[in-house]
Amino acid sequence: MADASAKIPYSLNSKKVAEATTFWLHKRGVTLEEIAELVMLLQKKYYPNLTMEECVHNVEMVLSKREVQNAVLTGIQLDVLAEEGKLLSPLQDMIENDESLYGVDEILAFSIVNVYGSIGFTNYGYVDKLKPGVLERLNDKTTGQIHTYLDDIVGAVAAAASSRIAHRKQAEREQELGQPHAPEDLEAASRKAATDKLQHE
Amino acid sequence: MADASAKIPYSLNSKKVAEATTFWLHKRGVTLEEIAELVMLLQKKYYPNLTMEECVHNVEMVLSKREVQNAVLTGIQLDVLAEEGKLLSPLQDMIENDESLYGVDEILAFSIVNVYGSIGFTNYGYVDKLKPGVLERLNDKTTGQIHTYLDDIVGAVAAAASSRIAHRKQAEREQELGQPHAPEDLEAASRKAATDKLQHE
Amino acid sequence: MADASAKIPYSLNSKKVAEATTFWLHKRGVTLEEIAELVMLLQKKYYPNLTMEECVHNVEMVLSKREVQNAVLTGIQLDVLAEEGKLLSPLQDMIENDESLYGVDEILAFSIVNVYGSIGFTNYGYVDKLKPGVLERLNDKTTGQIHTYLDDIVGAVAAAASSRIAHRKQAEREQELGQPHAPEDLEAASRKAATDKLQHE
Amino acid sequence: MADASAKIPYSLNSKKVAEATTFWLHKRGVTLEEIAELVMLLQKKYYPNLTMEECVHNVEMVLSKREVQNAVLTGIQLDVLAEEGKLLSPLQDMIENDESLYGVDEILAFSIVNVYGSIGFTNYGYVDKLKPGVLERLNDKTTGQIHTYLDDIVGAVAAAASSRIAHRKQAEREQELGQPHAPEDLEAASRKAATDKLQHE
Repeated sequence: MADASAKIPYSLNSKKVAEATTFWLHKRGVTLEEIAELVMLLQKKYYPNLTMEECVHNVEMVLSKREVQNAVLTGIQLDVLAEEGKLLSPLQDMIENDESLYGVDEILAFSIVNVYGSIGFTNYGYVDKLKPGVLERLNDKTTGQIHTYLDDIVGAVAAAASSRIAHRKQAEREQELGQPHAPEDLEAASRKAATDKLQHE
Repeated sequence: MADASAKIPYSLNSKKVAEATTFWLHKRGVTLEEIAELVMLLQKKYYPNLTMEECVHNVEMVLSKREVQNAVLTGIQLDVLAEEGKLLSPLQDMIENDESLYGVDEILAFSIVNVYGSIGFTNYGYVDKLKPGVLERLNDKTTGQIHTYLDDIVGAVAAAASSRIAHRKQAEREQELGQPHAPEDLEAASRKAATDKLQHE
Repeated sequence: MADASAKIPYSLNSKKVAEATTFWLHKRGVTLEEIAELVMLLQKKYYPNLTMEECVHNVEMVLSKREVQNAVLTGIQLDVLAEEGKLLSPLQDMIENDESLYGVDEILAFSIVNVYGSIGFTNYGYVDKLKPGVLERLNDKTTGQIHTYLDDIVGAVAAAASSRIAHRKQAEREQELGQPHAPEDLEAASRKAATDKLQHE
Repeated sequence: MADASAKIPYSLNSKKVAEATTFWLHKRGVTLEEIAELVMLLQKKYYPNLTMEECVHNVEMVLSKREVQNAVLTGIQLDVLAEEGKLLSPLQDMIENDESLYGVDEILAFSIVNVYGSIGFTNYGYVDKLKPGVLERLNDKTTGQIHTYLDDIVGAVAAAASSRIAHRKQAEREQELGQPHAPEDLEAASRKAATDKLQHE
């Protein structure tokens, strides 16, 4: 039996990775709405008509990227193991105490922001410093829970969603101006159609 | 007149940015086919049925991203100014001589690779070191031309296109296996449809 | 003559690169003290006894790194050329208007922050968003001056200096506790001695 | 007792972090000499007189950086847990199989390379693709051992050490030419003196 199963080559199931991402965010107490609220906080100044629905949609699109899912799952895994005291010393201590010279959490966060380009760097740093909304709760050190990674990851997803919105809004603006469109815009339009279809099915 | 025009707020025209990217790559002597050949070199080992048409398409998709266009235009601009001797010393000398401790060209290249995630890091480093095909020509220091930036940018676009192919091939594989699909796959499918439509119009 | 000079191989003069960095920061209206004030703003909360002298020293040390000098010189060069209207369209427009989807300035800034590791990401984003002190002046769009790059670079140097301080303060703390020291600490100590010597000569 | 200990604030012990890094590299079967051999492979072409002793020294200096130690410890931790089957699915499968769309290992590797700047990007990609020496052994999938992270980390340490050598050699060259020196060079000299002293004690 073991032989037989050993011969089946490993094949990634993307849907499982996507589902695990949603599952673990939820299990660690973070809702998409809370992340969307960070996006709204960052973007309402630039787009007064921005709706919470749009923010949630953009958070979902960020979370549908494999690069993002990898970072979320890896970060939450390290938080969970630190909470259970199962990491090797001194890594256990550094993650447990969110040690100020330990920056691998920021590195993972940046891999998320980077997917939508460098324009999100600033937004990430800003929310990570101010810790509004859900980030304040994740940073509460009195709960016994450890969110050294998740804290940064949530801020990064919000920053990435903000970048995504900035790109999309520019495309919309140009379409309204009747400017001829670049392939990327057409893609965005068809993507939106596909997503809308998906959501209404 | 000047007053009037001064009052029109600046509005980015994405199509112009996209067109300038294509124009300048061409003007600096790089064809999409040459970049696609680097992609083929990097990927044929993993996907024996990969066609040049697919490689060209993926290069085009990478080049349709704003983040990529920004890096291409900025890099070529610095190459052109260095060629004309118009940069301030010692920056002029460093770019003119592709100085080994000057790494801003690599930094711009990485912003391109990053758009499709970290899986492209290795491919970029590999082609940049071996300098196959078009990269050998761009590195010829006897022509009087300066391609300190373009050299790295072309390798980065090829690496990014390779990452894009890896993501798409995985999605195709899962569709063939009849696995239920993540939103991203649906997006990819509709995107492909939109692009095909665009190309046949 | 041309032949003779052509035969002298290019040899980088690091001192010239360092001097040009200081010269251009000054010429573009930024003093080390102003950058040090940003550092103080970011760090006084953590180190109440931190002096301006220490902040200036750490800014100087950041600026002595080649990677940082490269980014500073390249960024200022692009600002100056944009101010003179000498860049090619549409790059000219994007840099002149600090266009929100143009992120190469952030990319260069990040190469500076990165030299002292990921712990500086947050500080960079924070000052870049709030624009305290010198950053407010650099962002004043009514002066005719263009500081699209310098603005981000100054914030990045301040963030990097903050990271440097965090590393040094930890080393000092451990030395006071009489803990045996890692090679890096010894290096830091001898480096400090060398620098002090340099400053008193 | 628990109360008392709970009141002692966490204080990082840098020496323990440094020692754990050396310990875990050794325990996972990687010697400094093997990493130094990769450095030699990458650099002998540029510096024919480079000695193995210098390569080992530069590897040690890279490993003395906290940012590097954090990445090494985090990466090895994930490898070890994957080997023990203790990660959550599907992360367990992705790391166990070194899945091609999982790139967090490359992200950690890049945080190491970045400490010495972007000039090391290419070297990292090159050794990671060719897998010479120790990297071939770490990639042997028939041993039951999992080195998904360590493989990339070792290549990154070698690339970073190569960058460090490039910077130091330039400083030496300028000193030999009798050029006046930048503060960084003086630092390097005193650092070298301190290190030599350390090694002979």
